[in-house]
Amino acid sequence: MREVAILGIGQTPVSEHWDKSLLVLAGEAVFAALEDAEIRSTQALYVGNMLSGVLDKQDHLGTLIVDWVGMRGHEAFKIEAACGSGAAAFRMGLMAVASGEIESAVVVGVEKMTDSLPKETTAGLATAADADWEIIHGLSFIGINALVMQRYMHEYGWQHEDFAPFSINAHANAMHNPNARLHIPLTKERYRKAAMVSDPINLMDSSAVGDGAAAAIIVPADAMPKREGHPLITVAGSGASTASIAVHDRRDPLWLTAAEKSARQAYRQAGVGPEDIDLFELHDAFSIMSALSLEASGFAERGQGPRLGLDEEIGIDGRIPITTRGGLKARGHPVGATGMYQIVEVVEQLRGQAGGSQVQEAKIGMAQNIGGSGATILTHILRAR
Amino acid sequence: MREVAILGIGQTPVSEHWDKSLLVLAGEAVFAALEDAEIRSTQALYVGNMLSGVLDKQDHLGTLIVDWVGMRGHEAFKIEAACGSGAAAFRMGLMAVASGEIESAVVVGVEKMTDSLPKETTAGLATAADADWEIIHGLSFIGINALVMQRYMHEYGWQHEDFAPFSINAHANAMHNPNARLHIPLTKERYRKAAMVSDPINLMDSSAVGDGAAAAIIVPADAMPKREGHPLITVAGSGASTASIAVHDRRDPLWLTAAEKSARQAYRQAGVGPEDIDLFELHDAFSIMSALSLEASGFAERGQGPRLGLDEEIGIDGRIPITTRGGLKARGHPVGATGMYQIVEVVEQLRGQAGGSQVQEAKIGMAQNIGGSGATILTHILRAR
Repeated sequence: MREVAILGIGQTPVSEHWDKSLLVLAGEAVFAALEDAEIRSTQALYVGNMLSGVLDKQDHLGTLIVDWVGMRGHEAFKIEAACGSGAAAFRMGLMAVASGEIESAVVVGVEKMTDSLPKETTAGLATAADADWEIIHGLSFIGINALVMQRYMHEYGWQHEDFAPFSINAHANAMHNPNARLHIPLTKERYRKAAMVSDPINLMDSSAVGDGAAAAIIVPADAMPKREGHPLITVAGSGASTASIAVHDRRDPLWLTAAEKSARQAYRQAGVGPEDIDLFELHDAFSIMSALSLEASGFAERGQGPRLGLDEEIGIDGRIPITTRGGLKARGHPVGATGMYQIVEVVEQLRGQAGGSQVQEAKIGMAQNIGGSGATILTHILRAR
Repeated sequence: MREVAILGIGQTPVSEHWDKSLLVLAGEAVFAALEDAEIRSTQALYVGNMLSGVLDKQDHLGTLIVDWVGMRGHEAFKIEAACGSGAAAFRMGLMAVASGEIESAVVVGVEKMTDSLPKETTAGLATAADADWEIIHGLSFIGINALVMQRYMHEYGWQHEDFAPFSINAHANAMHNPNARLHIPLTKERYRKAAMVSDPINLMDSSAVGDGAAAAIIVPADAMPKREGHPLITVAGSGASTASIAVHDRRDPLWLTAAEKSARQAYRQAGVGPEDIDLFELHDAFSIMSALSLEASGFAERGQGPRLGLDEEIGIDGRIPITTRGGLKARGHPVGATGMYQIVEVVEQLRGQAGGSQVQEAKIGMAQNIGGSGATILTHILRAR
């Protein structure tokens, strides 16, 4: 593959955007990325989105957006892999540019979730799970994650409050991110007293859905202009893997094989290991997923993910800073857009643009986006030089 | 781009598959393609599908299928571009293999439409159009095409019956395709007397929806094994372009700019012109689309598409054989799968496996897949050598 670099980034705040359509949100992120890149258009546009057909009665989203942003005629498709749609679109864009067929592409993740009735959103999210073997039995998506967390606590002897540091860290970092959904400091007591959603997952274990869009422009690395104050940020590694969607079909429901495989693939391509990663934007849809992701990606021993939080190793100055801009928990989780928010946030860190949650001298950042409860996992490693 | 070749193909009949789920259909096509290719698995799987979320309550289809076909762990995503989803997935697979990141991929188009209520299917198809500017006014997808056909007849002076040869040709060719949805010879009288659907489009101008899946396995051309009786079939050209989704936003609603651009891109890559094409699988969702596609792709003058049918130039022995296996009209139109059926059928022709509808000495075949009423268009040229 020829080396690919990131020329520009853009994002909207994650929020309840009652006044903005799916199209307007996507457009804002794309325009911001074009402006950041100092270009007018790209040859292709790829969209990461999960629920436009179900919630917005609008498929064919790639072509709709490419027209809206003034690139009528240019190639455009939507890529979907449930909550992993953002990073899936990024990877497809990456391969398109790497192939030599496309010289510049904008990848935009977008989702609009708060205009629908909560029961519609819940039903929409359930389409990420196995319709015939999970959902038909009345399981919701959060219910599936609750079963996994319950089993994890039982198996490895953790208490619910041991997961608190993941959420507290995310909320603390979001305070410094103007694009975050929640700007609410979280205390241990508030975490403990939060309303139960699906035992043992309470409201403060759960990411906040929202509306939002995030975009990045990718070009061949050798086409990158040299610009003052802009390090060259390349995609050093890209890995993708899958597991069975139905959690009960996995040999070990407490181990994310797809995270392990995709991270290993990204590490190998980048020629680095977990010890070289300066920050890690992981997919904390629920606090249990932070633990599982850290373990399968090589940052903690099996069953010991919560230890990293309790030992204060996940903060901005810790051994492995995670969810540095708020993560899914507090930046928010507009599902099909999330993977692109992660990429954008890693770029912010590598550029030194992360303000109060800046990781000092960050050179190598990793993003991991998960579709379903660990079924589709993509890991990307970006490097500044 | 490194050159990419087609190693194997598979398909299910297009039909009302009451007894088979989306997953079973996709699996049948993938297994057939693997068997045809004489391999056990591929490194990645890309799915072209439009309506699984809306009609089957199942997103995350790539990962579901890759697990079902025994490739758990391998990369898998869904690509969506309305009725152009099949060819969009094919193009993304092509670029993935061309990039060097992926060494073998199976691309499968799949759709299941007949298990839903007709009004649900109609609402689903409408998501291909502009929700805010077309559908909200009560237009259906067929209604949009009827407006275009009405205008075309008015502008260029054609009568409804002048479009009959497109449908008659498609039905005649489908008689020789065991995988076609309709095996019903069509006469001029039957065409004229067919029930009106949306004036001037009657039932015999309209493609038949259906359930089905079609798949192809792609690998780098230099990795192709030499096999007795199997010519090397390469993807000589691939083009993709878009127009505004809303037809009223186009400068000329009677000209498919995206067909023109994508065909030109494919011709340029393949180093050929319309005169070199031995057969053309076009996107005859409605008979008017056959005319528009032939014109924009360089086979007829503006406004003169129906002339090719009336002059008997579109049959198997004609100047430019189209819909040689029945087309959308008679092979059927399982929307997100259609683009892959076209690819599979071109391969059948180039291999000499098209039986009673075989184009003699076919060496170069073209497939054109359309999303929406001309909004997303992909053109692929395959070559046997």
